[in-house]
Amino acid sequence: MKNYIKHQEWQIIEEGFDPHLNKISESIFSIGNGRMGQRANFEETYTGETLQGNYVAGVYYPDKTRVGWWKNGYPEYFAKVLNATNWIGIRVAVNGEELDLNTGKVLEFSRVLDMQLGTLTRKFIVELRSGNVLGVEAVRFCSLVDDEAGAICYSITPHNFEGQISIESSLDGDVKNQDSNYDEKFWTEISKTEQNSFALLTMETKKTAFWVSSGIHTEIHQNGAPLGLKPKFVSKEKYVAQQFTVDVKKGETTAIYKYAVNLSSENYTKNKMEAEAVATLQKIVAKGFDRMRQEQAQAWAGKWQNGDVVIEGDVAAQQAIRFNIFQLHQTYTGEDARLNIGPKGFTGEKYGGSTYWDTEAYCLPFYLATAPQQVAENLLIYRYKQLDKAIENAEKLGFKNGAALYPMVTMNGEECHNEWEITFEEIHRNGAIAFAIFNYSRYTGDQGYLAKYGLEVLIGIARFWAQRVNWSIEKERYVMLGVTGPNEYENNVNNNWYTSTIATWCLKYTIEAIELVKGMDPVRLTELFAKTNFKEQEETGHWQEIIDQMFYPVDEKLGIFLQQDGYLDKEQVLVKDLPASDRPLNQKWSWDRILRSCFIKQADVLQGIYFFEEDYDLETIRRNYDFYEPRTVHESSLSPCVHAIIAAKLGDLDRAYEFYLRTSRLDLDDYNNDTEDGLHITSMAGTWLSVVEGFGGMRIKEGALHLHPILPQKWTSYAFKIGFRQAVVTVKVSDKQVKLSNESNVNLEIHVFGLAHQLQANSNLELNT
Amino acid sequence: MKNYIKHQEWQIIEEGFDPHLNKISESIFSIGNGRMGQRANFEETYTGETLQGNYVAGVYYPDKTRVGWWKNGYPEYFAKVLNATNWIGIRVAVNGEELDLNTGKVLEFSRVLDMQLGTLTRKFIVELRSGNVLGVEAVRFCSLVDDEAGAICYSITPHNFEGQISIESSLDGDVKNQDSNYDEKFWTEISKTEQNSFALLTMETKKTAFWVSSGIHTEIHQNGAPLGLKPKFVSKEKYVAQQFTVDVKKGETTAIYKYAVNLSSENYTKNKMEAEAVATLQKIVAKGFDRMRQEQAQAWAGKWQNGDVVIEGDVAAQQAIRFNIFQLHQTYTGEDARLNIGPKGFTGEKYGGSTYWDTEAYCLPFYLATAPQQVAENLLIYRYKQLDKAIENAEKLGFKNGAALYPMVTMNGEECHNEWEITFEEIHRNGAIAFAIFNYSRYTGDQGYLAKYGLEVLIGIARFWAQRVNWSIEKERYVMLGVTGPNEYENNVNNNWYTSTIATWCLKYTIEAIELVKGMDPVRLTELFAKTNFKEQEETGHWQEIIDQMFYPVDEKLGIFLQQDGYLDKEQVLVKDLPASDRPLNQKWSWDRILRSCFIKQADVLQGIYFFEEDYDLETIRRNYDFYEPRTVHESSLSPCVHAIIAAKLGDLDRAYEFYLRTSRLDLDDYNNDTEDGLHITSMAGTWLSVVEGFGGMRIKEGALHLHPILPQKWTSYAFKIGFRQAVVTVKVSDKQVKLSNESNVNLEIHVFGLAHQLQANSNLELNT
Repeated sequence: MKNYIKHQEWQIIEEGFDPHLNKISESIFSIGNGRMGQRANFEETYTGETLQGNYVAGVYYPDKTRVGWWKNGYPEYFAKVLNATNWIGIRVAVNGEELDLNTGKVLEFSRVLDMQLGTLTRKFIVELRSGNVLGVEAVRFCSLVDDEAGAICYSITPHNFEGQISIESSLDGDVKNQDSNYDEKFWTEISKTEQNSFALLTMETKKTAFWVSSGIHTEIHQNGAPLGLKPKFVSKEKYVAQQFTVDVKKGETTAIYKYAVNLSSENYTKNKMEAEAVATLQKIVAKGFDRMRQEQAQAWAGKWQNGDVVIEGDVAAQQAIRFNIFQLHQTYTGEDARLNIGPKGFTGEKYGGSTYWDTEAYCLPFYLATAPQQVAENLLIYRYKQLDKAIENAEKLGFKNGAALYPMVTMNGEECHNEWEITFEEIHRNGAIAFAIFNYSRYTGDQGYLAKYGLEVLIGIARFWAQRVNWSIEKERYVMLGVTGPNEYENNVNNNWYTSTIATWCLKYTIEAIELVKGMDPVRLTELFAKTNFKEQEETGHWQEIIDQMFYPVDEKLGIFLQQDGYLDKEQVLVKDLPASDRPLNQKWSWDRILRSCFIKQADVLQGIYFFEEDYDLETIRRNYDFYEPRTVHESSLSPCVHAIIAAKLGDLDRAYEFYLRTSRLDLDDYNNDTEDGLHITSMAGTWLSVVEGFGGMRIKEGALHLHPILPQKWTSYAFKIGFRQAVVTVKVSDKQVKLSNESNVNLEIHVFGLAHQLQANSNLELNT
Repeated sequence: MKNYIKHQEWQIIEEGFDPHLNKISESIFSIGNGRMGQRANFEETYTGETLQGNYVAGVYYPDKTRVGWWKNGYPEYFAKVLNATNWIGIRVAVNGEELDLNTGKVLEFSRVLDMQLGTLTRKFIVELRSGNVLGVEAVRFCSLVDDEAGAICYSITPHNFEGQISIESSLDGDVKNQDSNYDEKFWTEISKTEQNSFALLTMETKKTAFWVSSGIHTEIHQNGAPLGLKPKFVSKEKYVAQQFTVDVKKGETTAIYKYAVNLSSENYTKNKMEAEAVATLQKIVAKGFDRMRQEQAQAWAGKWQNGDVVIEGDVAAQQAIRFNIFQLHQTYTGEDARLNIGPKGFTGEKYGGSTYWDTEAYCLPFYLATAPQQVAENLLIYRYKQLDKAIENAEKLGFKNGAALYPMVTMNGEECHNEWEITFEEIHRNGAIAFAIFNYSRYTGDQGYLAKYGLEVLIGIARFWAQRVNWSIEKERYVMLGVTGPNEYENNVNNNWYTSTIATWCLKYTIEAIELVKGMDPVRLTELFAKTNFKEQEETGHWQEIIDQMFYPVDEKLGIFLQQDGYLDKEQVLVKDLPASDRPLNQKWSWDRILRSCFIKQADVLQGIYFFEEDYDLETIRRNYDFYEPRTVHESSLSPCVHAIIAAKLGDLDRAYEFYLRTSRLDLDDYNNDTEDGLHITSMAGTWLSVVEGFGGMRIKEGALHLHPILPQKWTSYAFKIGFRQAVVTVKVSDKQVKLSNESNVNLEIHVFGLAHQLQANSNLELNT
């Protein structure tokens, strides 16, 4: 855990330069626009510790997996989010001496991520070895409006010298992934061109043959006016640059304006890409830096207008929730159904792949409530498009008849993780994908999706579960053997309660969905049954048998659901009794010891209770929470938010607040000592959930919006805005009052503390509590 | 499965050349002498499919492991048996045209491994593209007498031409391991020298810094007489050679005699190695090829004299058992306690490491009965020497107070496998290491070992088990969670019956051993307790508590021991009902499906019954055998022998014979389709066990030798010889008779079918059956 980020409501601020924190800050200060993004690397040369990262959405590499002993069904590759052409490079030499914060003496330094404006600003004063002192201010952003573009204004002011500065503004395609399994580089060069004032570089990924065409334009201004300098074009392998030499005087500022574009072959015909890059670059150069920056601020204002969460009385909490929302918007805009939300977004390489069950379990509710319906639908369509691959994936493992197993990690629908205990066993993800369809339908009230896309996915998933269980002659029940639940500190367990529960839920929901579509659109149903070769009587009959006779482990004495068979055989120790020096377990204990222990990485039984809350009475929820919470180490970023929501429901406000802080400031305070690898993007949606579903107690029941707001002691008030069907409502919770503002033109029924209220269009309602 | 090896009692014969079988034959026709060994690669250039393999005992490389996601406690490296300098190379060009069986037309071809003489002979006639036809006969061996040396006689006879042959006899250190994890080469060059008629090359392994100094001397003879040609010395990176050019005539034979030595820095000071290589080479050159070959035949005659198994009436069975015994002797001679028996010996790279639990569980009984007692003792001392490393290994996993966990795979005592489900979980190996101490003591009657070395190992192992179990509040018993039994088609199971059984057996045996040493050598005991900081009362008290309250899974209804908790939850299918196309499962099924199935890779419960047979009545053994045998797929080479022994005990002669054939001809007939990777050396000891303990029914009970011989229907008779304590006895079993010949000078009590007989020194006893 660290504590060096200044608390401020709208800004993330680092003051002073500590090279040991640099990789953490590179993650935290990351910028992006859903189409491209990057870590907060320096523009100028930096020879210290850094993790270079520039990413272009959808561009990946199928890196050969590393496994000890290959076994049938193992994925061939582990897809990597690719570090792509570095477009920010501005090499600076002062009278021949290279500017490098690793060799110079840093006198002042600050980094500011402004979440209102959507810009990253870095300022420093450095004394070079020669004794020359200069100040630099670098402002950078990835444009939300021109989402293939970014711009930099890099200003240099000599403090105590005059002389010559040489500048090399580059596109560097000779990059590598730090997590390359076999130290390979993944890019080859296609072309590099000088075209008028532009330098262009097109690179291709090996194997996947994605092209990324990048272009830059660089202008030098002095004292606010352009110098009109022509750049010298420089090129070497996988590298182009524009060189300038300028005379500088003490106290006078030289500003380098750099405009850059990155186009992906996912969106253009390859042979037209260079021309398109030129056109895009022309467009932004014509706009100019200031207008781009203005448009950026406007676009961000729009996002905040729709989705801000305001917390009064607790700056750390306020900053944190905004940071989480900001990073989510930087990662995914929902405009392209081919894209998804990588666990690290555009902020690091770790975890590879773009899509985990995180998307369905944690991110979908955030986008349902804060974005146009199309965004959530695109997330579902992403999986629909990959149904064939999910069926192939199940076939590779021996399943048949259209059974679908969605991958644990994927880029294109194929499984690309490489541990059997995850890929083969963490099959509960299949349930989350079905649950997302339910959740979408419940939230939007739109059953059309079910008929058009959803049911086909559900049938594949239901078929998988029906084949995955087997009849136990011992238990005289259907059992589910050899699984890994959400708690990845267990592997290959039998009858994981969560997995078995979500499996039969899927079967039930698919039967319901069939009935629903039957009533709604029987022609479509017939068509779908033909397409999937579905034998209704036979298959649903078998499903019903499984639903009726499934085994779920419970402990009658304790009155709890058992995480899995034999969980109570483990030595029962509580987290509070663990020495601090043993934490986090995953860094201190051997894997063996973790596996055998009772400690839980992240919500498992409680994840099921969170999903299916309505099926359990409050006492059952409390007993399970009271049993499992003290055994949970929360060593997954996805854990605290679920606990926060359940704690809030149970009125355990102190724990709920503690969990909220932990999830919301996870990266800002580097709780798990791993922020340097990148941010925990998907769990950021969980932070939002812990406010809205946790403190706000928001639920959708029978088509209506319900709230049970509670206020953490430390806060004066909090407010969040949600879109629900046609309505938009802001909920502000303060000590004695819940204020509801309907900002839309439709009336809305809203239940607060179980009482129904009619909230007229464009009106407010104040309820005393 | 293949069937191309000719059946012959003393020879392994391949006739005709099929390039697709070449890698299989390279394994089968491997030669070695315990100190060095090699695959049956060709001397001349071969551009077809081949797996080059020359190995020097004890020389390994710690190759960086390949794992997807690193976790604490994972081994850093996977030790590789190293492919070392190739000393057999004899490049031949006929009038400038390279001799290569891949490009020439092979008119005749045979390979013969003569197990009586210890030589590999290859003959072929080839037509080159030029139309030139020549015959070649190559005889090669690794000398048992000069165990750092090998020799080749390579004779060439032109059939239809005359002209010039150029010959390049080489030492090639530029070799690589095919299973290198990161395509690295593991050797660097130290020196290469020409010294009189010798060419010398010294190579060093990276990281481990082993040196191997090799030297060759090459002589050319024509028509039986030396030509006295001086070689031309050729050298390039990691390579030296001796070149000759000779005129040849149709029908006249040119013979190339090549003498080679390989010395390891394990046995010499590095700076003296080249001189020692020269001296060794001088010694064998002085002997000459014919005398070396003669000595080789004599040495092998000695080995057969002591350890032959003679089967009459079944050539395939006879050939097979001799092949197994022959390969065991080629792999391990027992002279050096630093060496052990790698699963592939000197015949391939797969499995890496030199030592698995195979040594204790399968090989030790073979050496106990067929070799001087020192050989078995050396195998035990190997582990004693690695006790510190085993304690370190356990510490890495969180164990303390001198608990020892021996590695699953090792070269130097450190764990070097790289799958958690094996390294952390297949802890039953610790039991086999304790059992070997018991087995040695039981067989030899020598308790001195226990006091001197054995007890210290037992205390470490017992401490491990005592810490590895935990108290289950659910079962009110001690349980053993998260293990993998011998059946590797299960991972991370709870309460594996075999593991729990051998664990408590270890505790009991250690308590017994303490009492024994207390009586025998109390001073040593005090010393040992001080050294190990052993608190007798406290520790043995706790052990006794575990012994008394251990949980073992059983099914009362079926009257069987359960392989593990929940085994009967699995879908119960029998192997006979599996489609042939699904076999072998490990090549046809996904790992997931295998894990969830009831199918058993190798004896698991039955392994325990084999070890602790005396603890169970015949009906219990029969019920367990009848239950588990039909579920066992025998996809480990270590499986059929145990089943053969139990089947024989239960009088199931047909199955016993079937298992025997399967284990004994596993490699000759390439049963598991993997002989090309190398031979299954350690399971070859199991073949011997299935004859002697299976058909012969040999057991040691209360210090006496017991036999229960039965004769497979297909056999006329079989005979084996065993050394038991001071006596040597040959047992010949025929249809109506068991003939016992005491070939030693001591009297022997021997029990046949439960009846005691006194077998006088140097006398025979014939018992009618």
